[in-house]
Amino acid sequence: MHIFDRVREISLVSSAGSILSWDQETYLPSGSADYRSQQLSYLAAHAHKLATSEDFLKSLAEAEAQDNGSDIILSANLRELRRESDRSVKIPTDLVARESTAQSAGHHAWIAARKASDFSLFAPHLETLVDFALQKADLWGYSNEPYDALLEGYERATSTADIASMFDKLVEHLAPLSAKAVEKTKALSPQLPPGPYPVSAQQDFNALVAAEIGFDFHHGRIDTTTHPFCTTLGPQDIRLTTRYEENDFTSSLFGVMHEAGHGMYEQGLPTADFGLPSGSAVSLGIHESQSRLWENQVGRSPEFWEKFYPIAREHFHQLRDFPLENFLQYIHRAEFTPIRVESDEATYDLHIILRFRIERMLLNREIKVSEVPSTWNDLFRESFGFSPPDDAHGCLQDIHWSMGGIGYFPTYTLGNINAAQLFQAATSVPEIAAATAAANYAPLLAWLRQNVHAHGATLDPSALIQKATGKPPSTQAYLAHLKSRYL
Amino acid sequence: MHIFDRVREISLVSSAGSILSWDQETYLPSGSADYRSQQLSYLAAHAHKLATSEDFLKSLAEAEAQDNGSDIILSANLRELRRESDRSVKIPTDLVARESTAQSAGHHAWIAARKASDFSLFAPHLETLVDFALQKADLWGYSNEPYDALLEGYERATSTADIASMFDKLVEHLAPLSAKAVEKTKALSPQLPPGPYPVSAQQDFNALVAAEIGFDFHHGRIDTTTHPFCTTLGPQDIRLTTRYEENDFTSSLFGVMHEAGHGMYEQGLPTADFGLPSGSAVSLGIHESQSRLWENQVGRSPEFWEKFYPIAREHFHQLRDFPLENFLQYIHRAEFTPIRVESDEATYDLHIILRFRIERMLLNREIKVSEVPSTWNDLFRESFGFSPPDDAHGCLQDIHWSMGGIGYFPTYTLGNINAAQLFQAATSVPEIAAATAAANYAPLLAWLRQNVHAHGATLDPSALIQKATGKPPSTQAYLAHLKSRYL
Repeated sequence: MHIFDRVREISLVSSAGSILSWDQETYLPSGSADYRSQQLSYLAAHAHKLATSEDFLKSLAEAEAQDNGSDIILSANLRELRRESDRSVKIPTDLVARESTAQSAGHHAWIAARKASDFSLFAPHLETLVDFALQKADLWGYSNEPYDALLEGYERATSTADIASMFDKLVEHLAPLSAKAVEKTKALSPQLPPGPYPVSAQQDFNALVAAEIGFDFHHGRIDTTTHPFCTTLGPQDIRLTTRYEENDFTSSLFGVMHEAGHGMYEQGLPTADFGLPSGSAVSLGIHESQSRLWENQVGRSPEFWEKFYPIAREHFHQLRDFPLENFLQYIHRAEFTPIRVESDEATYDLHIILRFRIERMLLNREIKVSEVPSTWNDLFRESFGFSPPDDAHGCLQDIHWSMGGIGYFPTYTLGNINAAQLFQAATSVPEIAAATAAANYAPLLAWLRQNVHAHGATLDPSALIQKATGKPPSTQAYLAHLKSRYL
Repeated sequence: MHIFDRVREISLVSSAGSILSWDQETYLPSGSADYRSQQLSYLAAHAHKLATSEDFLKSLAEAEAQDNGSDIILSANLRELRRESDRSVKIPTDLVARESTAQSAGHHAWIAARKASDFSLFAPHLETLVDFALQKADLWGYSNEPYDALLEGYERATSTADIASMFDKLVEHLAPLSAKAVEKTKALSPQLPPGPYPVSAQQDFNALVAAEIGFDFHHGRIDTTTHPFCTTLGPQDIRLTTRYEENDFTSSLFGVMHEAGHGMYEQGLPTADFGLPSGSAVSLGIHESQSRLWENQVGRSPEFWEKFYPIAREHFHQLRDFPLENFLQYIHRAEFTPIRVESDEATYDLHIILRFRIERMLLNREIKVSEVPSTWNDLFRESFGFSPPDDAHGCLQDIHWSMGGIGYFPTYTLGNINAAQLFQAATSVPEIAAATAAANYAPLLAWLRQNVHAHGATLDPSALIQKATGKPPSTQAYLAHLKSRYL
């Protein structure tokens, strides 16, 4: 069997697993979770078995031997499959199984620890999970520091040192910018008119907006979950989720625009290559650029609301006497909050950079797990001027570490940076700028389809940005965006 | 690996397939069907591969060799696994694949033929599907006629001749009974007050009733589909679906009670034995007995409505001035309609018996496929006194043949017969009779749990009925039920 057929077969199995996971989050009856875990484990193990089988490796080697370099997509697919395969086979199956068990235990412990705001309940689990991360980093290998090897799984061909230096420069500008933005918000103290904003009206408005920006409902849908996400159940089956706050319709709306950004990326990948690198998203930092671009560069722009505020008013009677100007002040408010997911464009990256620094120190054994809370609080105070009230609002707030997701956080800020750079490049085309100014987003989406989505994972993230924008990734456009929004 | 562990592994795969199928019917975006078929085919083929592997057969043979008969459940499981396995291995994989393709084509042709009411569009496909049925019957083997071998797949250890003679006797009584019931309805011409009965109120009332009769929503849920069904996604994950008519809330209600009957059977099977015969439903005729018992013996009883009509009135204001007596006349109406799924307790079996007779004639080559429409119309006129207006309302109305489901229809009437016999036996216990008369159904469900559900597939259907009711299956209780309802 050709290696590509094997990869397609594995995609059938892993996407079936995605369907089970989606149902688990959306519709699974409360008492039915145990067996679902077993079904998911079976499918994951089966996919892993296929992807590490001798037959798979033999087919890959055969295809590599036959590759004469004349088809660059074919060569890119083989190169990326080799990269993934080499990483997979370095991790013994029993390590995967033991880590999975530790993640499960860690997740449960984290829930309890966050509830009690007691880091000591989670500390031994985090210890174990950091150990696993270091073991894996050693098995994968790295040139400078263990964090490089972990980062590679989320953002390939990127170095920790490069990210650190980019983040350091960003903070230099972000610190004064966020302080000013927060002061400005305090002075204006913007408020949305009181709710309720009925859920059904939110659903109608969100669906209208998602369709207008280009999310294809013939190949996707929106459901309700506690934690919003976007998932791909097949080459043309993209599911978004959101949650609703009756007091603030913008919460679900920006959530939907964010997830629709992820979803439009997935819908724009080459369908025929589903499962192959050329039909897959390249990295989390590029994925997040698509969600943040539609959420922030588009969704929080005055131009967007020139067109959509009158429609919002038809859905929510409270807005009828609430001027657009006040509404824009509300959606551009900036606040120093201890909680990352409640933060805004002006402050979000400070939260991310803090986590990145702590992760890196942990992996370099510069701090111990037991020192995480104090380090967190010190770094937080440096950026935000106050300490979190407790660990539940501090180092215990995020789910990622409890699931073994170490090395994931920086991709959020990479996404913000990439979003601004891509949006700037797209709107440097006069036709796209004019259309976007009139809240007509078809040309912008077409540009993203051509310059980002169509490449799948055939280019490294930085090469993709270089090719799309003519420049290497840099914080320049992002800082310009934040300054223009907040100052 | 022990054979039971292999069976459990196969159940993980096939139940994952059920999740994909459920999503396909409930939430799949309109443009996402193609890849879903591929995912389903892969899982079906993988399950089939596991169930017919040498390892599987070896494990089964080993377990049989070790079985000393001391554990009757273990022995029953091995006996039933052997029966299933022997049937599976007799059908070559390529025949399964070719039949699956023919079913797909047949299904599409049937849709077009029914739409155009043109049997000739479907006839060549039905020809092929009957050929496949006969080929399989030959491979499986049979003692009297090919239909026996097909029936075995839906209702094991039952003979076509026995069913035919039971049905013949039933018709003798049904013909005059249905005629009288239809006359009575004509005289009364009962009507439900006009709608709309809002869908959300129907959903609330249906859920309340389903929970009251014992459907466990912690391990199940109700969604909306064009064609209602009940499916099992795991040992404690049972999904029902229904559809709503705004002019008649009883349509979705009786639909939900029917599907909840199937669902409570599945919820009552031994959870720990999920996938093994001892944890599986025994036959379609027993499954249908559970759905029909809750729909008809319970749901259409005056006792049920004594309790639930006041609650229905709280949900549907139209009922406030509509007397219970008139409502009961409405739900007990009988009509000669050409369409099976619109028919009632008094006429339903006449539709089934007609189909059974035609199937049997086809399989015995007593009629040709081209003669199906004329045979249908002749038999229909015999039972109902008029001919269907066209083939769309005649021999093209049902989906079953188009999917290769030949031998399935008789289980509907077996379900009606079994339902009445089981209900009669249960309510011969004075405590159950008293509780049921007061619309308290916990004791009735407990009896069904103990006497039907708990056995899984360890007893043949007729042995199960004999053990539960003290009598072999007979039409006696069913005819008594129909007489008491309609005469």
